[in-house]
Amino acid sequence: MKEFVTEHQSPYLDLTTEVSDILYKGNSEYQDIIVAESREFGRMLVLDGVFQTSVKDEFIYHESIAHIPLFLHPSPKNVLIIGGGDGGAAREAVRHPEVEQVTMVDIDGKVIELSKRYFPSIAKAMLEGNPKLTVRVGDGIGFMKEAADFYDVIIVDCSDPVGPGEGLFTYDFYKSTYKALKKDGLFVQQTESPFMHQPLIQNIWASVSDIFPITRLYTSFIPLYPSGMHCFTMGSKQYDPLQWTPNRNRIFPTRYYNEGIQRSAFVLPNFVKDLLYGEKER
Amino acid sequence: MKEFVTEHQSPYLDLTTEVSDILYKGNSEYQDIIVAESREFGRMLVLDGVFQTSVKDEFIYHESIAHIPLFLHPSPKNVLIIGGGDGGAAREAVRHPEVEQVTMVDIDGKVIELSKRYFPSIAKAMLEGNPKLTVRVGDGIGFMKEAADFYDVIIVDCSDPVGPGEGLFTYDFYKSTYKALKKDGLFVQQTESPFMHQPLIQNIWASVSDIFPITRLYTSFIPLYPSGMHCFTMGSKQYDPLQWTPNRNRIFPTRYYNEGIQRSAFVLPNFVKDLLYGEKER
Repeated sequence: MKEFVTEHQSPYLDLTTEVSDILYKGNSEYQDIIVAESREFGRMLVLDGVFQTSVKDEFIYHESIAHIPLFLHPSPKNVLIIGGGDGGAAREAVRHPEVEQVTMVDIDGKVIELSKRYFPSIAKAMLEGNPKLTVRVGDGIGFMKEAADFYDVIIVDCSDPVGPGEGLFTYDFYKSTYKALKKDGLFVQQTESPFMHQPLIQNIWASVSDIFPITRLYTSFIPLYPSGMHCFTMGSKQYDPLQWTPNRNRIFPTRYYNEGIQRSAFVLPNFVKDLLYGEKER
Repeated sequence: MKEFVTEHQSPYLDLTTEVSDILYKGNSEYQDIIVAESREFGRMLVLDGVFQTSVKDEFIYHESIAHIPLFLHPSPKNVLIIGGGDGGAAREAVRHPEVEQVTMVDIDGKVIELSKRYFPSIAKAMLEGNPKLTVRVGDGIGFMKEAADFYDVIIVDCSDPVGPGEGLFTYDFYKSTYKALKKDGLFVQQTESPFMHQPLIQNIWASVSDIFPITRLYTSFIPLYPSGMHCFTMGSKQYDPLQWTPNRNRIFPTRYYNEGIQRSAFVLPNFVKDLLYGEKER
């Protein structure tokens, strides 16, 4: 008998993949967790029914959320990752020689544990005990509130704005982010699909642009996520991605990211510009 | 009882949307046809079980396949569209003042007829009897073989390379395309997903780059299609999209296309470059 996992991408849209095996099915204090061996995407992590990451396409998400902010900053020494329990964002961040320490704070220790067990290629930096990386289990919001003028780059690698990720999409959270960053710091957050989650993106944009002098949005192709069109919102105190020129060499290979993508990711289709800036005659 | 339409995007992956109504279900000489009112994408055209177009996201596909080649060419007067029976590519092409005549040849008259009936916003140019547009029902391959040194831009707006679209993905077809184009002509074809259809894309690339001096690939976000990451292959005799600078003003509004997209669509992630150029140390 064939087995499947399905994400209800919206009340009216399902994405279903056949799986050869369910490796784990259980729950943590915070969420339902499935680890499945899918025939389309390879091994997948599913939280509360939402496809989080897959071995086949995770490089796109993790390179997009890590390298775009890290290469925008000319000298990212202290990096904070909020969420990111699978370890993929941390794996990419520690590859930058300029990065001296990466602190990752995920609320769900079970996700960290299962990622180390079932996703060794993603959890690589955690498994190897990379000396730059400190992994904490706890509330990222509370943790960040104690920091001031400390981080160069903050990466908010959160799940959807329901369940444990909910508090990471509030005005207060962005205020704390601003305070925790150095005077030339910047942050980035995954902010769902510009095709499917427009009110959410507009709300985030309004908050971030009220607090940060520079607010930008960039996109990435993520086959596992609803519509395949995913976006990231960035708030920056000083560096503007639209003015980016290469500030150092990239000494490691990548599968998605390159210097062209660093620029083109910020080039937005008109309907996305309309979302952010309002509809004008173009 | 709820009704759904499903596309088997691969043997292991299904995309399913709830529909409020099936407006047409039947078949032509060439394929099974469904017109459904979906709750996610609005009205949709489904051919042989494959989602072809939807009212909600069609602007992305049609603007991508039409405006990128048409704005690359400094003076596109004669345009041929092979396939494109829904009329969307023709609707976009006739908006260019430089374009004097658009000939559209689709093999399936039933698709044209149903598009006019059920998709008036897409079939607009056909319905209005736009004087620039000639619609023919017939074999695009045979039609094109009779032309030599005639078209400025050829748009191959075909379905997947199975069924009636199969002959549009062959070496001979690209030879005929080359012959039918003027000495500075160019053509573009929809060529599926770089994430999901890699051998197909490599085959097309090998053929086109054997025939045309300039071969390029560009991408576009298309939520309705597998992975959401779609690509188009372009063969050009003279104009190189990587050297593009604006050659005229755009006098009509668009919802996806803009001058930034004209450039950024050709910026490829590393895994796509690897597909086309082979893996090298980057």
